[in-house]
Amino acid sequence: MRFQTFVLASVFTIITSAACADPQTAAALRDKALTDPTAWNILESLTTEIGPRPAGSPAAMRARDWGLALLKKLGFKNVHAEEFPKPSWERGEEEASIVSPYPQKLAIIGLGDSVPTPAEGIDADVIVFKSYADMLAQPPGAFTGKIVLVDQPMVRTQNGAGYGAAVPARISGASEAARRGAIAYLVRSISTGTDRAPHTGDMTYKEGVPKIPAGALSVPDADLVMHMAERGPVRVHIKLLSTFHLDTKAWNVSGEIPGSSAPDEVIVIGGHLDSWDPGTGAIDDGAGVSITTAAAHLIGEGKHPRRTIRVVMWGSEETEGASAAYIAAHLAEVPHIVLAAESDFGCDNAYAIQLPAGVMDHDAIKPLAGVLAPLKVLISRDPALHGGTDTDGLRSQGVPQFSINQDGSRYFDIHHSADDTLAVVDPVQMNQVVATWAATLEILADSDVDFRPAKQ
Amino acid sequence: MRFQTFVLASVFTIITSAACADPQTAAALRDKALTDPTAWNILESLTTEIGPRPAGSPAAMRARDWGLALLKKLGFKNVHAEEFPKPSWERGEEEASIVSPYPQKLAIIGLGDSVPTPAEGIDADVIVFKSYADMLAQPPGAFTGKIVLVDQPMVRTQNGAGYGAAVPARISGASEAARRGAIAYLVRSISTGTDRAPHTGDMTYKEGVPKIPAGALSVPDADLVMHMAERGPVRVHIKLLSTFHLDTKAWNVSGEIPGSSAPDEVIVIGGHLDSWDPGTGAIDDGAGVSITTAAAHLIGEGKHPRRTIRVVMWGSEETEGASAAYIAAHLAEVPHIVLAAESDFGCDNAYAIQLPAGVMDHDAIKPLAGVLAPLKVLISRDPALHGGTDTDGLRSQGVPQFSINQDGSRYFDIHHSADDTLAVVDPVQMNQVVATWAATLEILADSDVDFRPAKQ
Repeated sequence: MRFQTFVLASVFTIITSAACADPQTAAALRDKALTDPTAWNILESLTTEIGPRPAGSPAAMRARDWGLALLKKLGFKNVHAEEFPKPSWERGEEEASIVSPYPQKLAIIGLGDSVPTPAEGIDADVIVFKSYADMLAQPPGAFTGKIVLVDQPMVRTQNGAGYGAAVPARISGASEAARRGAIAYLVRSISTGTDRAPHTGDMTYKEGVPKIPAGALSVPDADLVMHMAERGPVRVHIKLLSTFHLDTKAWNVSGEIPGSSAPDEVIVIGGHLDSWDPGTGAIDDGAGVSITTAAAHLIGEGKHPRRTIRVVMWGSEETEGASAAYIAAHLAEVPHIVLAAESDFGCDNAYAIQLPAGVMDHDAIKPLAGVLAPLKVLISRDPALHGGTDTDGLRSQGVPQFSINQDGSRYFDIHHSADDTLAVVDPVQMNQVVATWAATLEILADSDVDFRPAKQ
Repeated sequence: MRFQTFVLASVFTIITSAACADPQTAAALRDKALTDPTAWNILESLTTEIGPRPAGSPAAMRARDWGLALLKKLGFKNVHAEEFPKPSWERGEEEASIVSPYPQKLAIIGLGDSVPTPAEGIDADVIVFKSYADMLAQPPGAFTGKIVLVDQPMVRTQNGAGYGAAVPARISGASEAARRGAIAYLVRSISTGTDRAPHTGDMTYKEGVPKIPAGALSVPDADLVMHMAERGPVRVHIKLLSTFHLDTKAWNVSGEIPGSSAPDEVIVIGGHLDSWDPGTGAIDDGAGVSITTAAAHLIGEGKHPRRTIRVVMWGSEETEGASAAYIAAHLAEVPHIVLAAESDFGCDNAYAIQLPAGVMDHDAIKPLAGVLAPLKVLISRDPALHGGTDTDGLRSQGVPQFSINQDGSRYFDIHHSADDTLAVVDPVQMNQVVATWAATLEILADSDVDFRPAKQ
């Protein structure tokens, strides 16, 4: 999951349809999903056989072939990959240390799209701020010749709101520091954890400001520098090397469970196949790929619902690109895409789903609440505004969104770090999420509800 | 904390004394400790200004000077360092990867006292066992030319019993693998966590068996190799370089709160000042140093109890040596040491204390239960058999032991890894432990109870 600006969309839907999905079928899918090994097996395969797979890397091409083979093996139809250009950033040698007053090694990782340091690195005094706001309050020239560190903790929340509050320091901090004279920028990992593993993620440079190297220290290392800075001047050494490739490509991998009576009405689901490089991309986002593929596969094994379910394994989420490429390729199809959502929040239990405004009160959808209740999943009264980073292009074109909300309490302990591996995945919780997706999809896809808001 | 063989000691104590400690004083110390910043400040200072400090390293010498300065500043008496020879092992360059079938990097760390690999490393097929017992069941020659990996999970327990069950695979696995022909040995980190950080620790070679290099993979990396091995042959590359130094030294740093009326009766407490190298040695064992120093300091600020409280910052626990050196230097003093215990189990809440057999029922000690009750600490009916690795030499000479048992549920997520930093420490829980030590010490040190079992 990367940073996402939420935009309030039109949220009123007029109920106009009558076909009723069968709650028994959805309940049976739910129960089957709870013990089905498909999702775990997919995730085990992806993390074991491919591992880390940033967009533009050779591993991402292997992941594309892995995805195509998987969807075919599971009986999906219309399986294919859609290529798009994707310039990419490749991590090089990285190291950091405190030079004085008390030499210690620092755990660092470069931020995606950062310019590199010189090959020998940078040695400079560091100025530490305990919040991003404190840094932004400084005047031009305040950091001339210095490295800036923002050591702001992230708040742990169930729904991930802590991320939105913390991540501007990662995305925009380098340019804001450079604007005030800094020669490099460090951010405390955007994480709720306390591990020594630093957390990467993308960043952007602002126009008209010098581009300075940007990296994340692990949570304890950022704190260590802060503790030292409370005693007096601290000098650090950082080396963050990287290469930018202009000519690389990425792929959205797609497969379908064709609808039985309205196959040209499509619900787009999926997860993103690309990952950051330090871990094996288990929770971000092998999880989403595995959960949605397994849920669609389970539905496909029985009588197909009215509408088509399309699984898209998005090929460039972490550094953008997949969503825009999809819209460019599928603009003419947009009126036939009735609904879209992405699974991109790990493997822990679902606790709520969000639907387009008004949909939960439709007769065809009402039984879903009872089907989800045994899973301890509620239907939120807040309508879905955002289905995922990769369905954002579809959203901008008016495609209604839904979301399945999972417990993110520990997600940001792990996300974008070396700790993102299969070892953190609880298969029981993952199957509860698959069950939530399968039951919800069955009801939505077998209905003829028009999810689009009525024209004003 | 390192591995410790528990030996059943004689556990009967005859109650012969009458002086009664004052529970009000102990309760006041308890309450003061709960908000006192001393322990946190000590731990912040040690992890910030010294950081990792393996016995024999230059940092260990700086830690000695830090400890001497701290004890003097806090008003301890008879502050000094006791030097002893300590041959030491120094980590060099380390790396590991899966060569085939699916290349991925592996997070590895060498085990203390391991012989190094050749400078170019070792490439070989790996044989994976899901338990140490499975490996031990193999015949001689079974592993000829192979690397062996034992991927046995560790059980999470409150009292740390999972460590004793898991750690033989780390301590003795290399020689057992070599006995069966292996050329290198890997163990899943002895950890209850799922982080990518591998956990080190000491190991020993058996006589008459070739010495082969030994390292620990992180939990997810050991699992990754296991998952790949389920598909067919797996070839790995490992490089574990290290140097052994014969002429290095270590120090036990000592200071006292002199007793008011029986100063020649000594209670020895403390933690160990040496640490493993990947983290900053916060919970292992900056915690123990900080907790016991703070507790003794709090007592020293008031009217001193009858007996002397001696804080020893042990200089070589992780790779042994401090306990034996202490006994060699203090043998004549042993009859005056009435009790000993070490704090070496992190910073999380205490939940029980253990005393020598029969002591809890003595009139002078009985009030302690009420003083500890508000802290949610009980007095165990199981007598203390073991006060800590560094008090084991004293125990072997008949010095009674006590122990303050802390919640170890998450201790082994962190222990011996890069994750062992100040960031994992909860100052509220740490002060609860300081309060437990302070109240317990006050009652024990102000009593005239003879803790030694009566002669048969």
